[in-house]
Order: sequence, then C-alpha cells, then structure tokens
Amino acid sequence: MSDIASSLAGKFIVFDGPDGSGKSTQMQRFMRWCTEQGLVVKEVREPGGTSIGEQIRQVLLDPKNDGMTIQCEMLLYMASRAQLVEQEIVPSLERGELVVADRFVSATLAYQGSAGGLPIKWIQQVAEVAVSGYWPDVTLILDVDDQTAVGRLNPLLDRMELKGRAFHRKVREGFLEQARSMPERYLVIDSTEDEDSVELAVKNAIKTRFCKDIP
Amino acid sequence: MSDIASSLAGKFIVFDGPDGSGKSTQMQRFMRWCTEQGLVVKEVREPGGTSIGEQIRQVLLDPKNDGMTIQCEMLLYMASRAQLVEQEIVPSLERGELVVADRFVSATLAYQGSAGGLPIKWIQQVAEVAVSGYWPDVTLILDVDDQTAVGRLNPLLDRMELKGRAFHRKVREGFLEQARSMPERYLVIDSTEDEDSVELAVKNAIKTRFCKDIP
Repeated sequence: MSDIASSLAGKFIVFDGPDGSGKSTQMQRFMRWCTEQGLVVKEVREPGGTSIGEQIRQVLLDPKNDGMTIQCEMLLYMASRAQLVEQEIVPSLERGELVVADRFVSATLAYQGSAGGLPIKWIQQVAEVAVSGYWPDVTLILDVDDQTAVGRLNPLLDRMELKGRAFHRKVREGFLEQARSMPERYLVIDSTEDEDSVELAVKNAIKTRFCKDIP
Repeated sequence: MSDIASSLAGKFIVFDGPDGSGKSTQMQRFMRWCTEQGLVVKEVREPGGTSIGEQIRQVLLDPKNDGMTIQCEMLLYMASRAQLVEQEIVPSLERGELVVADRFVSATLAYQGSAGGLPIKWIQQVAEVAVSGYWPDVTLILDVDDQTAVGRLNPLLDRMELKGRAFHRKVREGFLEQARSMPERYLVIDSTEDEDSVELAVKNAIKTRFCKDIP
C-alpha cells in the first residue's frame, strides 16, 4: 500500500456541486486513481445506493410528485441517507476502505436549504440524526458558473434539474457558503477547466489535505 | 353550531395507542358525534393520507424491507407526516375544521423511540421540522394491556404488528410516559371496556378539556 493509500484508508470523501459541475466524472477519475494506489474504494450514490434508498429515490424523482413539500423532500433524502450510512458506509469504513460518495448532506443544505428556502438549522438537526456521527472527512465542492453548467447538462432533465437558472445560482452560492463556514470540512475545486486539469486539482487538494507528510 | 362545536372548530386532535387499542373504532365514533354537533370534520391517516404519503407507506410496510434501519423508518414516517401537515392539516385548520388524525408524532415516539430504541431527543428534533409548529391540541391515548390488545388484532398482521408482545409492552409504556411528561397535551383513556363505555369516556374527556364553560 502506498503512502497515499495509507493516508486515505478508512476515510469518507464526498463529491458534490451543482448539476453540470462534472462531479460524477471527476469522482470516477479520482476513484480510479485511488484504486491504482492500492486502496479498496467503496462508491456510494445518493439518493439511493441501497434497495430501500432506490425505492425512496423513485418517490423523490417522480415528476407526478411535484406537489411535494420542501420538508417532505428533505426528510426523504435524509431517510435514504440514514439507510446508506448504516448499511453501506459504516461497514466499509470499519473495514478500512475509502468511501467515496456522490452527494451527501452538503447537497441537501444547498438544494433544499440555500435554494429551496428550508432553514439551514432544520436541515442540520435532521442530518445529525440521519448520519448519526458519520460526517465526511472532507466534502469536495466542484464549482462552476451556471453558464458552463448548463452546457454540460443532459437534455433529459429530471425534476431537480428543471428548476431553472436562478435556482442553480442559489445552489452554487449555498455550496460556497458551506465551504466558507466550515473550511476544515470542505475543499472547493474550480471545475470550469478541462477534465484533466480538474482531475489534477482534485488530487492535489486531497494530497495537501490528507497526505501532508508525503514528499 | 352547538357550543361544543364552537369549542372544537379549528382544533387538531390525535387518536393514538398500541395496536389493538381500538383507537380507529373510537376515532370513527368520535368523528360521527362531532359531525352531529355541526362540525366539519377532516379525517387524516398516518402513514399516508396523501398520494405521496401512500407511496411512502408502501416502502414502510413492505415486508421485503425488513433490513430498514430505525433511523430510516423514523425519517420516512416524518416525511409522510410533513406532507400531510402542509397539504391537508394546515388548510383544514385554517378553514376552521376539526382535524382528527389516526396516529401522529406520538406513534413515532412510542414505536421507534420507546420500543425501537431511537433516542427520544432525535425524534423530537426531527418532528419539529416535520410538523413546523402544527402540534396537536390534544393527543388521546387509548390504553389497553397487551392481553386485551392481542385479542383484538387482525390475524393478517403487517410488519409493525409482527414484532411481538415485549415490543408492544414497550410501546404502551412509551405512550403512557409521553402523557405523564406532557399532561397538558395528552389525555389517557382506559380502552379495556366495551366500545360504548370507551366512547363515552372519550367524549367526556374532550368536553372537560375543551368545553369547560359548557354546562
């Protein structure tokens, strides 16, 4: 196992950011690199990631449910998350694997809180229950302006992605605000450049955060 | 409108208690009486009561989902409840109707908290978000010993009802503990007697609580 691998074993890293930020692509690249370093990497996906979570995801993303209240939406994301934490994340961390998640509490804070108008305090008090102590070691925010983001989005948009550009700007601002208020738990990566450059920025940021002693 | 009706218009009353306590039967009888008094009565049902809630209910009660964590279960009940509050309960209360609910936060405190082992404080902090200030004016606990309760249960038991007698005793104790600690928000009704006697006890308890000035 490389020095990098020893520094990252048993860590929990989240990739998050606005839709179109390239977070999923970058997460795949980062996981490949980690595997090459000798790490056992556990990938988890939100919402869903478990069979119960997938059923919850169906309810969340069904366009018929557009009368869903913002509280209900938030609680459904948290329910799916609670299942994921206990069923997948905790056992992996206990085996010393690197857990990498596509979205986590940061997404709820940005989408339902900063953009959706639900008080941040409410989300935090529910999140405390859902994650039961298993906060990520770091949340990487892949940051892009909305112009760049829209150009990257799939034309088959789901309910979340149909909410328009003003909403997306609030989402982005929400992510950046989280990073400003909890710098020890977040890293912001400029994701406007080409994929290779962003991948390098992600690796460097992670090395700087977790592998300080490695030359 | 009778004096009783004026005292109960715009109130929110919950019927709760262990499975087999006869709460649903008593709730129907109480609502009939209220309608006779000239009240517009809005009946709500948990989990479910809205189309989104019914979808959540499917996830909750599906025996395939028996690996569901207690946090996930609680958050799903709360998600369904949040939708019910904003979509059904609040508009009815604002129209001056009497809202009568079959189960509410009290059930989560008893089943997932007292019996399921989830910290009561966690349930309360999530409930605060789900009900967003719309706490019941009173929660009636229909109280029976487990021997009587089992005799009343339908042989086609769902996942909640399959958990056995020790579980049921903890549920009952949980309900009674809530009533002891918040006497101004609860009423305990002995539900071991025949249906007519219990119905009378319910009516008298409600009159004493809300219609003090009525001779």
